Amino acid sequence: MDDAATLDVGGETLVLTHDMIVEGIHYRADDPAADVAWKLVAVNMSDLAAKGALPRGVLLGFSLAADADWDRDFATGLRDALTHFGAPLLGGDTVSVPKGAPRALGMTAIGLAPPTGAPSRAGARAGDLVYVSGSIGDAGAGLALLSGGGAARSEAEQALIAAYRRPMPDLVLGRDVAPLVTAMADVSDGLLIDAGRIAAASGCAVRMELDRMPLSDAFLAVRGESLEDRRFAATAGDDYRLLMTVPPERAQALAHVAERHGTPFTRVGACVPGQGLTLLHNGREIALPPRLGYEHSDILP
Amino acid sequence: MDDAATLDVGGETLVLTHDMIVEGIHYRADDPAADVAWKLVAVNMSDLAAKGALPRGVLLGFSLAADADWDRDFATGLRDALTHFGAPLLGGDTVSVPKGAPRALGMTAIGLAPPTGAPSRAGARAGDLVYVSGSIGDAGAGLALLSGGGAARSEAEQALIAAYRRPMPDLVLGRDVAPLVTAMADVSDGLLIDAGRIAAASGCAVRMELDRMPLSDAFLAVRGESLEDRRFAATAGDDYRLLMTVPPERAQALAHVAERHGTPFTRVGACVPGQGLTLLHNGREIALPPRLGYEHSDILP
Repeated sequence: MDDAATLDVGGETLVLTHDMIVEGIHYRADDPAADVAWKLVAVNMSDLAAKGALPRGVLLGFSLAADADWDRDFATGLRDALTHFGAPLLGGDTVSVPKGAPRALGMTAIGLAPPTGAPSRAGARAGDLVYVSGSIGDAGAGLALLSGGGAARSEAEQALIAAYRRPMPDLVLGRDVAPLVTAMADVSDGLLIDAGRIAAASGCAVRMELDRMPLSDAFLAVRGESLEDRRFAATAGDDYRLLMTVPPERAQALAHVAERHGTPFTRVGACVPGQGLTLLHNGREIALPPRLGYEHSDILP
Repeated sequence: MDDAATLDVGGETLVLTHDMIVEGIHYRADDPAADVAWKLVAVNMSDLAAKGALPRGVLLGFSLAADADWDRDFATGLRDALTHFGAPLLGGDTVSVPKGAPRALGMTAIGLAPPTGAPSRAGARAGDLVYVSGSIGDAGAGLALLSGGGAARSEAEQALIAAYRRPMPDLVLGRDVAPLVTAMADVSDGLLIDAGRIAAASGCAVRMELDRMPLSDAFLAVRGESLEDRRFAATAGDDYRLLMTVPPERAQALAHVAERHGTPFTRVGACVPGQGLTLLHNGREIALPPRLGYEHSDILP
């Protein structure tokens, strides 16, 4: 029910998360190696941020595919990302992959939860307000630009591509909001699917308001703000923003944290009695899109 | 310099290790899925055992390759192994791999070091004796049998294949010898290469005695005890036994632990002043084989 596990050790709560990315599935084979490394680190840091945890270190599982240039660029991006997020490389494993096989890269991040505890997906209650940090849809729009080909890029297009290639989860923001939220998750698979998971884990319904989606200037310049654009932003994923539920009486305190960090928080919905996800647009309920985001499969029965 | 990292948290020492295995590289594509799961768990448990650590849990990175039978058998083997080693599955990630691509599987194990601390590879001193637990070469002989094809298997052959497919690192043994050793490692890549790594990390020379290699009855029945057989056993790897250095005055205490566990410990060498690895056979120095075991590559400069 959660993207990260917790483990109590010596009076502290460890937060543990493991993410894998596979060439051709989670990143494009032509993505720069340094950006692939950044993304691998960032997706793990995003899981920690959603728990209010700060990193103690990471372990890396690296695939060698007989391309020393790629490996060197990856190491550079890895160093930059680990420095940025303040996460030392503790260890890991290096394996060869058969000739022509896609690389599979794994990372485990170990963090320490705040003294107030690690928020889960399961704490939301009817009456809570749903907030998201920053803007959404940028990375999805950036990926769509890359998939569409083309070379000359406007500044706005470059910003969207950067959002896809160099996601910037905010660990300190996560730590600072953790004591205020009833539930928290990172937006990795799509805002709607991640909101639906909070609803399912918490045993309440979540109503999302599509007209409230926070869209960046770059997104507005490149795509727009039609219903279709908003639907795209709310289901594209790869945002690595924080999705939070808070009781109304803590909305003010949350706004203070947002202001201190210079990060906009936007109210995008509310928890109500019942179950499941409903979608509103300009106050009217509309049908859920057929695809709410990226769906994981599950091996264990 | 070590197969596992340590991290101090709340007065406890965590031991963290991550191992990846890739289809066609670390296991045979026709190895039973349940055995692949067992091996993935066992190689990680072996790293913990070499630190005297007992597991607190594991995280799994699993590749889906559109084969539900394989996945179900893997899950069965995973459950059996985690139950055997007493390691709960805390979390992880499931990814799809492109059609036809080999599976890459990753596991992170988290353990707690004993109160006396986690032995490293670096503590051996000239004068220490070198011991190995159990027998070596069995898994290597089993793999050779599988690679050679054939169907009808003698009992001894079956035992060797089982040693390859279901390695049995001994966590409690590792915990019990940890306070006695000056250095410890698991024999994963080959006895000689792992002994050479202790020498390099500890800043002493290690002299290994090939005529002292502990060979199992099954190994003797299927292969023999010629110089070539002993060389094979000492370089084949996949043994997941414990390689230990102890000062002579603790040899008696070590023997008591071995007896209590019903596991033979064999003195296979000694640490002497100098550096590097030397090999003896019946008291005479002989040339090192060109290949001491499985060599890892390293991505970081």
